[in-house]
Amino acid sequence: MRVVKVPLGSRSYSILIGAGQLSRLGVECRRLNLGQCCAVISDRNIAPLYARTVQKGLRDAGFEPSLVVVPAGETAKSLRTVQSCYDQLAAHRLERKSFVVALGGGVVGDVAGFVAATYLRGIAFVQVPTTLLAQVDSSVGGKVGVNLKAGKNLVGAFYQPRLVLCDLATLDTLPVREYRAGLAEVIKYGVIRDAKLFTHLERELPKLLKREPKTLADLVARCCQIKAEVVGQDETESGLRAILNFGHTVGHALEAISSYGKYLHGEAIAIGQVAAARLSAARLGLPARDVERIIRLFERAGLPTTVRLGSARARRLFAAMRLDKKVRGGEIKFVLVRKIGRVEFGHCVPEGLIDQVLTEIANPNGCRQ
Amino acid sequence: MRVVKVPLGSRSYSILIGAGQLSRLGVECRRLNLGQCCAVISDRNIAPLYARTVQKGLRDAGFEPSLVVVPAGETAKSLRTVQSCYDQLAAHRLERKSFVVALGGGVVGDVAGFVAATYLRGIAFVQVPTTLLAQVDSSVGGKVGVNLKAGKNLVGAFYQPRLVLCDLATLDTLPVREYRAGLAEVIKYGVIRDAKLFTHLERELPKLLKREPKTLADLVARCCQIKAEVVGQDETESGLRAILNFGHTVGHALEAISSYGKYLHGEAIAIGQVAAARLSAARLGLPARDVERIIRLFERAGLPTTVRLGSARARRLFAAMRLDKKVRGGEIKFVLVRKIGRVEFGHCVPEGLIDQVLTEIANPNGCRQ
Repeated sequence: MRVVKVPLGSRSYSILIGAGQLSRLGVECRRLNLGQCCAVISDRNIAPLYARTVQKGLRDAGFEPSLVVVPAGETAKSLRTVQSCYDQLAAHRLERKSFVVALGGGVVGDVAGFVAATYLRGIAFVQVPTTLLAQVDSSVGGKVGVNLKAGKNLVGAFYQPRLVLCDLATLDTLPVREYRAGLAEVIKYGVIRDAKLFTHLERELPKLLKREPKTLADLVARCCQIKAEVVGQDETESGLRAILNFGHTVGHALEAISSYGKYLHGEAIAIGQVAAARLSAARLGLPARDVERIIRLFERAGLPTTVRLGSARARRLFAAMRLDKKVRGGEIKFVLVRKIGRVEFGHCVPEGLIDQVLTEIANPNGCRQ
Repeated sequence: MRVVKVPLGSRSYSILIGAGQLSRLGVECRRLNLGQCCAVISDRNIAPLYARTVQKGLRDAGFEPSLVVVPAGETAKSLRTVQSCYDQLAAHRLERKSFVVALGGGVVGDVAGFVAATYLRGIAFVQVPTTLLAQVDSSVGGKVGVNLKAGKNLVGAFYQPRLVLCDLATLDTLPVREYRAGLAEVIKYGVIRDAKLFTHLERELPKLLKREPKTLADLVARCCQIKAEVVGQDETESGLRAILNFGHTVGHALEAISSYGKYLHGEAIAIGQVAAARLSAARLGLPARDVERIIRLFERAGLPTTVRLGSARARRLFAAMRLDKKVRGGEIKFVLVRKIGRVEFGHCVPEGLIDQVLTEIANPNGCRQ
């Protein structure tokens, strides 16, 4: 088992990574001095697969878990789902020392984390991510929350889990589309912070697509390590942490105008990263070859790099970007790449250039000649 | 103008107390280094009275305020109201540097504070309490949140305001019932922490009921000072802060089983404090004379000290108490009085005794002989 520490003073915690760890959850929770009563929040896809194992482990360690099942998918990341969780936590008599276990992908983690952050003004929670995306990204760092109609993650909190337990075996059952969506965040870590990781991904992608256990274990650990380093330096995103949003300005807007249904988050940010790479070429002189490498890696991972955008949708996309949390004084801020492995945050980009890049990603053959 | 500091390190803030201060809000906000865009959240009773003055003051100081009006009363303290606020904040394009002004009583402050704590994972907020209860209690200390059907304040956060501005002139328009409800919290400070204040209240009550400005100013400042001292020592209620919940276990339960309609919060906690005083007599030997003084002061303030409880309602009251946030390991914890001015928190009380005291407050003549 690999252990990555997230260094946040009194809110520090460990990420445990290994295959077949799910049944150990109870034992690991035992060390955290939590109350007996807890709620496992999971979704309709994941609960039938793993809830029994998790509940048994918790019971064997002396806890009294109840199960709360929410709908699956990004549309469930809503206040309505949160309300339903609150009501069930109250019905199960969870107290201040009780805790919540988030068992599932990014949506479950974000919703369950927000519920834990706000129920009784905050009770403990533990992340048990079962998708690649959640294991390498959303379960670590304490960003929790839900979407509004107006935009993604507009409601939420910074609220750290007490433990993250990644069971790599849960990735075996992940549908291929979801697995690939997770690779979008993996590739992101290479682009923003680790050129060697990027090269490694270019070389090892076939093994990774086959979900080769050793490759996967190394990779999840490396991604968590990068995220832990960044979050450890800037928990509430007053600076550095913004680099983790690479590709997310266009990505989130794309999700919002598609009503959170069409694209998986990873797919949307693959497109968003391509847009950001093209903006970087224009603004920071990112070499065309690097833009190509980035696009090519996404393509090989089976991720979308282009998007159809009529003029009406392009306008809605702009409007959604302006509502992004990263907007300051009405200006949209971008994370841009200087070279692979090194990015800069807080760049303003003229609207004309954004327009041009959106045209390029809508019509890639016209611009990659 | 009186100034009380709430000492919370980087989250410290000032409470400004004086008559006719409302128009100064813009100038005071200017000092806080906040963004231009802000939202004034108020309710249907208060907005027509004061929103114009507040908005003008903000505009004159260079801010761009929008107004969000929510329904009045405890039933508005719901996730539904919160959702509607989020949607309006998004429509008004509030950003991370934007801020929320809570203009109204306790309900508005709690709702608006929770909205500020969670919108974009937290934006700044300023409390402008316009009821006595909000000025002496709920606007100070950072407890924000909403009710669930299952119980009061079951959802929320600890989230400190950046400033509290109490304009005593707003108390002139307060309906007499609401004003008296505020006195329940004022009396509470005497019971829990300041025997001199309690004696002062016994003597000066007639002036206070006439809302005599100087008496009122001294009193609001003294109450805020006590609250600031307690919160400064224990922000998130891991110990001492619990004393502020004196009378709230029975009080909250009473509100919950009455669907938050029948009793004002102050009325419910007046009854709750009487119940707690009687429990204190039985458990800690609080002299009968002190119990009488407490009851008598509430009566003179025009507050209820008894409650009609059939056996069905008594059972529901018990069930609601068990869901209180203060429950640990299934046991209901009480704040009890050793003598006026000195309380102790974390006392378990046998159910039989609670039963007996509830019978007493339902049938006071039978037990005060």
